[in-house]
Amino acid sequence: MSSFWGNRLKISIFGESHGTAIGVVIDGLPTGFEIDMDEIYREMQRRAPGRSKNATARKEEDIPEILSGYFNGRTTGTPLAAIIRNRDVHSKDYNYLKKVMRPGHADYGGYMHYQGYNDYRGGGHFSGRITAPLVFTGAICKQILEKKEIYIGSHIKSVASIFDKNFEEVKLSRDLFKELSKEEFPLLNKDLKGSIQDAILQIKEERDSLGGIVECAIIGIKAGIGNPFFDSIESILAHLIFSIPAVKGIEFGAGFEITKLKGSQANDEYYYQGNQVKTYTNNNGGIIGGISNGMPIVFRVAIKPTPSISKKQQTIDIQTKKNVELEIKGRHDPIIVLRAVPVIETVSAIGILDLILSQTGV
Amino acid sequence: MSSFWGNRLKISIFGESHGTAIGVVIDGLPTGFEIDMDEIYREMQRRAPGRSKNATARKEEDIPEILSGYFNGRTTGTPLAAIIRNRDVHSKDYNYLKKVMRPGHADYGGYMHYQGYNDYRGGGHFSGRITAPLVFTGAICKQILEKKEIYIGSHIKSVASIFDKNFEEVKLSRDLFKELSKEEFPLLNKDLKGSIQDAILQIKEERDSLGGIVECAIIGIKAGIGNPFFDSIESILAHLIFSIPAVKGIEFGAGFEITKLKGSQANDEYYYQGNQVKTYTNNNGGIIGGISNGMPIVFRVAIKPTPSISKKQQTIDIQTKKNVELEIKGRHDPIIVLRAVPVIETVSAIGILDLILSQTGV
Amino acid sequence: MSSFWGNRLKISIFGESHGTAIGVVIDGLPTGFEIDMDEIYREMQRRAPGRSKNATARKEEDIPEILSGYFNGRTTGTPLAAIIRNRDVHSKDYNYLKKVMRPGHADYGGYMHYQGYNDYRGGGHFSGRITAPLVFTGAICKQILEKKEIYIGSHIKSVASIFDKNFEEVKLSRDLFKELSKEEFPLLNKDLKGSIQDAILQIKEERDSLGGIVECAIIGIKAGIGNPFFDSIESILAHLIFSIPAVKGIEFGAGFEITKLKGSQANDEYYYQGNQVKTYTNNNGGIIGGISNGMPIVFRVAIKPTPSISKKQQTIDIQTKKNVELEIKGRHDPIIVLRAVPVIETVSAIGILDLILSQTGV
Amino acid sequence: MSSFWGNRLKISIFGESHGTAIGVVIDGLPTGFEIDMDEIYREMQRRAPGRSKNATARKEEDIPEILSGYFNGRTTGTPLAAIIRNRDVHSKDYNYLKKVMRPGHADYGGYMHYQGYNDYRGGGHFSGRITAPLVFTGAICKQILEKKEIYIGSHIKSVASIFDKNFEEVKLSRDLFKELSKEEFPLLNKDLKGSIQDAILQIKEERDSLGGIVECAIIGIKAGIGNPFFDSIESILAHLIFSIPAVKGIEFGAGFEITKLKGSQANDEYYYQGNQVKTYTNNNGGIIGGISNGMPIVFRVAIKPTPSISKKQQTIDIQTKKNVELEIKGRHDPIIVLRAVPVIETVSAIGILDLILSQTGV
Repeated sequence: MSSFWGNRLKISIFGESHGTAIGVVIDGLPTGFEIDMDEIYREMQRRAPGRSKNATARKEEDIPEILSGYFNGRTTGTPLAAIIRNRDVHSKDYNYLKKVMRPGHADYGGYMHYQGYNDYRGGGHFSGRITAPLVFTGAICKQILEKKEIYIGSHIKSVASIFDKNFEEVKLSRDLFKELSKEEFPLLNKDLKGSIQDAILQIKEERDSLGGIVECAIIGIKAGIGNPFFDSIESILAHLIFSIPAVKGIEFGAGFEITKLKGSQANDEYYYQGNQVKTYTNNNGGIIGGISNGMPIVFRVAIKPTPSISKKQQTIDIQTKKNVELEIKGRHDPIIVLRAVPVIETVSAIGILDLILSQTGV
Repeated sequence: MSSFWGNRLKISIFGESHGTAIGVVIDGLPTGFEIDMDEIYREMQRRAPGRSKNATARKEEDIPEILSGYFNGRTTGTPLAAIIRNRDVHSKDYNYLKKVMRPGHADYGGYMHYQGYNDYRGGGHFSGRITAPLVFTGAICKQILEKKEIYIGSHIKSVASIFDKNFEEVKLSRDLFKELSKEEFPLLNKDLKGSIQDAILQIKEERDSLGGIVECAIIGIKAGIGNPFFDSIESILAHLIFSIPAVKGIEFGAGFEITKLKGSQANDEYYYQGNQVKTYTNNNGGIIGGISNGMPIVFRVAIKPTPSISKKQQTIDIQTKKNVELEIKGRHDPIIVLRAVPVIETVSAIGILDLILSQTGV
Repeated sequence: MSSFWGNRLKISIFGESHGTAIGVVIDGLPTGFEIDMDEIYREMQRRAPGRSKNATARKEEDIPEILSGYFNGRTTGTPLAAIIRNRDVHSKDYNYLKKVMRPGHADYGGYMHYQGYNDYRGGGHFSGRITAPLVFTGAICKQILEKKEIYIGSHIKSVASIFDKNFEEVKLSRDLFKELSKEEFPLLNKDLKGSIQDAILQIKEERDSLGGIVECAIIGIKAGIGNPFFDSIESILAHLIFSIPAVKGIEFGAGFEITKLKGSQANDEYYYQGNQVKTYTNNNGGIIGGISNGMPIVFRVAIKPTPSISKKQQTIDIQTKKNVELEIKGRHDPIIVLRAVPVIETVSAIGILDLILSQTGV
Repeated sequence: MSSFWGNRLKISIFGESHGTAIGVVIDGLPTGFEIDMDEIYREMQRRAPGRSKNATARKEEDIPEILSGYFNGRTTGTPLAAIIRNRDVHSKDYNYLKKVMRPGHADYGGYMHYQGYNDYRGGGHFSGRITAPLVFTGAICKQILEKKEIYIGSHIKSVASIFDKNFEEVKLSRDLFKELSKEEFPLLNKDLKGSIQDAILQIKEERDSLGGIVECAIIGIKAGIGNPFFDSIESILAHLIFSIPAVKGIEFGAGFEITKLKGSQANDEYYYQGNQVKTYTNNNGGIIGGISNGMPIVFRVAIKPTPSISKKQQTIDIQTKKNVELEIKGRHDPIIVLRAVPVIETVSAIGILDLILSQTGV
């Protein structure tokens, strides 16, 4: 079933872009955990639109209302439910979606899957907006992981063909992650900010859009976490990450590049640093046989260009069964990559926390 | 939990490389399906070692014994269990594995995960051999899908830096897939066979290993199959594919390359061809918003070089807590990519059948 | 995990008695189903308190607000979420619950399970109030089943030692069920109404409470629905029914009495009535080997007396670790059995719909 | 799906009475647990037929062969698979089952469910024989629970209308349980043995069968284990127990009798005995709100008379679509209750261990 996920930790999400509200139910959270709500809202603001000239003009407050599972500032251990009301929607903008299928969007597949009964307004349940409750959920998980000294960070690995450094080239630390999380353009090589901004403004003028790659790292996971068939760390993270709209690929460690290496180059040789087990390289991205080896978990996620562009496109009208031309009105991001960063980080936190709780129970 | 997977179709695998037997339990198969066992064995032979000079010398019969759920040549609808006895094992070859962690292998993570109690012989439960029951399972699913006119095929997209054509460049058909499945080196550009063979023989002499990329395509899936959060087609396939040892990345459609395109290039524009909905391009690999759009589903999988190499390597001895040198004896594939091809195909069949049964019930 | 349930149909409930809201997320509902909301509210009113002099004085509107999955009067096929705001709560009434454990209530187990972090007010997540979203969910399932000509009905089999007839003694029909569902005291032998009312008023004066048995029947289920190990119809129904607070037993068909029969008496002999397969008796309650045989599914549920009584009771104070006396203030039902009737019916509808959808997909 | 069960602990069973083998896969067992195999076999012998003149003459060795997950006498933490080969089968005895539906058996429901493709021989997957792998599984769980000082025992509460004492009337202890487990007729009032034996011999002569009630108790579970909606201890145990063929009812604590008590009688009042929390009565059977309160968990299970009787019965022939008479040949127990005792105990151990591991992880 689609909207339920989890093993020891379980989540259930719901909502349509222009429905009454979107939200999530989270079960299996540790009992008595004190949530730093300001930090949660800060994470959610990272994803929220209307934050900068690079994002859509749609204003959302995205302040979740917690309905249950939270008492006197702490998790109770019972299901924690939270909703976000939908506001500021111009549904009329979207009426044409009843019949005209936007290229690159889920309109057509959704129409076929739900036999025409789904709420098409603003993409309905397929809208990127549905990731807001995921970020809320993952932000809580991230806090719980931080208490276990597990930290997650990410940066923009690329926008179109502008490439940042790799995490392999820098020292990973909680401070680096915190710093990156505060940047509008989280980059290891800050000099790229200007050219990326220019590229975005340029594509905006072209009424077109750009894609990019996000690189994410997780530090502090001890060796031995994860599973062989079927719940490898890669399986769990990939499963969740591919739920995020616009993701088309994921790779761990050296990823696709590892296929060009020889075994003697690809193998990460072990050594003792005092009592600590380390590897000289991290081509496996901290995961072998689905299980952590104590090195940082590193992966990259490919985000396609925003499918909503105002350029004229060829497509179909499913009512007239005719080929038609489409010019999308309304408000869109020229690039989703920036807003995808906190989504990928927090969704990963959900997966990692579930893996750890499944194994250790606490 | 690791070894159980599935929604409407459920599978449970078990076994260690040098234990008594490996096997699988499959529940949820359609009732009364007549299995072509010769075809199943043929698929399993594709994965089996000792088939050619490129593979390990280890001989396995790998003929599964069906214990239940199969009566008068048909599935009964009750759980179908099958086992494969382990034979021809030289466990003494592996005794050093108790203490010396092979780089690139799951030895260390497994030791930590199972607190030293796991069966280390031949990699135990982490052995690629455990994919044999998966191929058996997927081969059955593949036959069921073929009755629904859904066909799966794959080819070697690359070995090291030798690259084959893309599926995008050829016409996909059941016949092409059948033909590819009979090749020792399934390639679209057959001229590459020689150079790939040379590369493999060369690396064998170097006592080293090679990796590569497998490209897989699925045709015949109607539009509307799949789910948004959390069980997108990508999520389900990635979850299963990352269970296969040595996989480090997966990408759908244009994959990571799509990040360099503009939205106007990346969007697959729709058109009617008669009553059929098609797209001019297939950058989304037949999946948008987690749901099929009727175009071929295409994805690529990165397979790392065989971690078992007989070259001298640096590693650790977890008993003496010392850094040591290791020269792995025994028999290994210089490349796993060839044997990974049928595993990826059949494992994908498991995921696709589960998605279809979950949606349609039949 | 506790608050998630389901196979093909999935539900996730949440909420505390005195929290912000209670609710449910339902995934896997058929697409495009037109819900008769008035009928849903009518079912919910059957459970709602304050309906008569036999129920608590607490007034609830219990009108659910649908947040998603429902568009133009029909299910969309995406998750349907609904919430009910909590109103009319006198939390101060409950402050003593922080420390004094009410006998017969979940206070103590909950305190230990949640390590003291749970919302104790009004029983929190353990409150019978949490069954309201279940009734909402089950009422929708009931409507879907009715479209398949499957009908569910129930009556009060007993209150204390006053026993109604058995369903075995009457002709089961949709009309009978509809009629029973409109009664404040759903009885087959209406003459018992007076004595039951007297017993309830009498126990109210005694500041004590009564229990009873509810008998439920399901007609219209064809033979072949259900499963052997582990998802028998009995397993699924019992699993859900034992989630309802105050349930202490369930029996199918002749239930515990069947243990006194000989096999020759207990076996339900088959015969053809035209082309229809029937049994002369129905000691197995329409289920053998976990699977329906086409006869009515009949079961009885034991409901204990309301644990909240205003009589003085012995109990413990977990803060002072002392034995104390307790006199519960506030408003309570002298009997839960009446309100349990629609909960049992609708919760059964959830289980049966899931079993059918899991098998047939539609 | 039917044959898969579990949350933190997962099991998957398979097999048909006259197929090649029956078995189970168990995942999630603690790592490094040393199994006392003699004790496992002893538990299995309690269930095995042909043990006494009261059981069927069918001889089984029922010695499971462990295929995986067990190394050097300990669990590895990987899936533990075990099979039992089927021997000593006279399939010809059962050929008539193709068409003639045995009253009280799953033949007809199974035929409809599997559309005639199931293995009908000896009841196939519905055979009580399939409980052998469950006893194997539960016997392991029971050993793990004993290490946690949790003990499970049971006795025959009744055979037909001959009733033993209740567990409430005696002091529950590990020794009592051990002693009962060694008896052919586990009774609290040993004087009943003679009359029960006579009743069984008598019914055997009548070519008929008897049913009865098994009472089971679990001691040593701390307060706080279990869940509210939907995985109450009652839900988990009932779900598993109703998977056992011939079970028609389950009740906890005072069960159906509690419906005749007043709240002031039914409520179990708490008191401190030193630092220990106790209740004066145990009408709730150690469970309130789905969660343990530290008192013994007590429940009773209704087992119907063996449906296989050699008396002449009315039934149907599904091939000729005619009503026919049936006289069952072959070997049957005149009573299943005796063999059900270890099944109920061990299956309960599976449920309790899963609940504990889900909560505590160890």
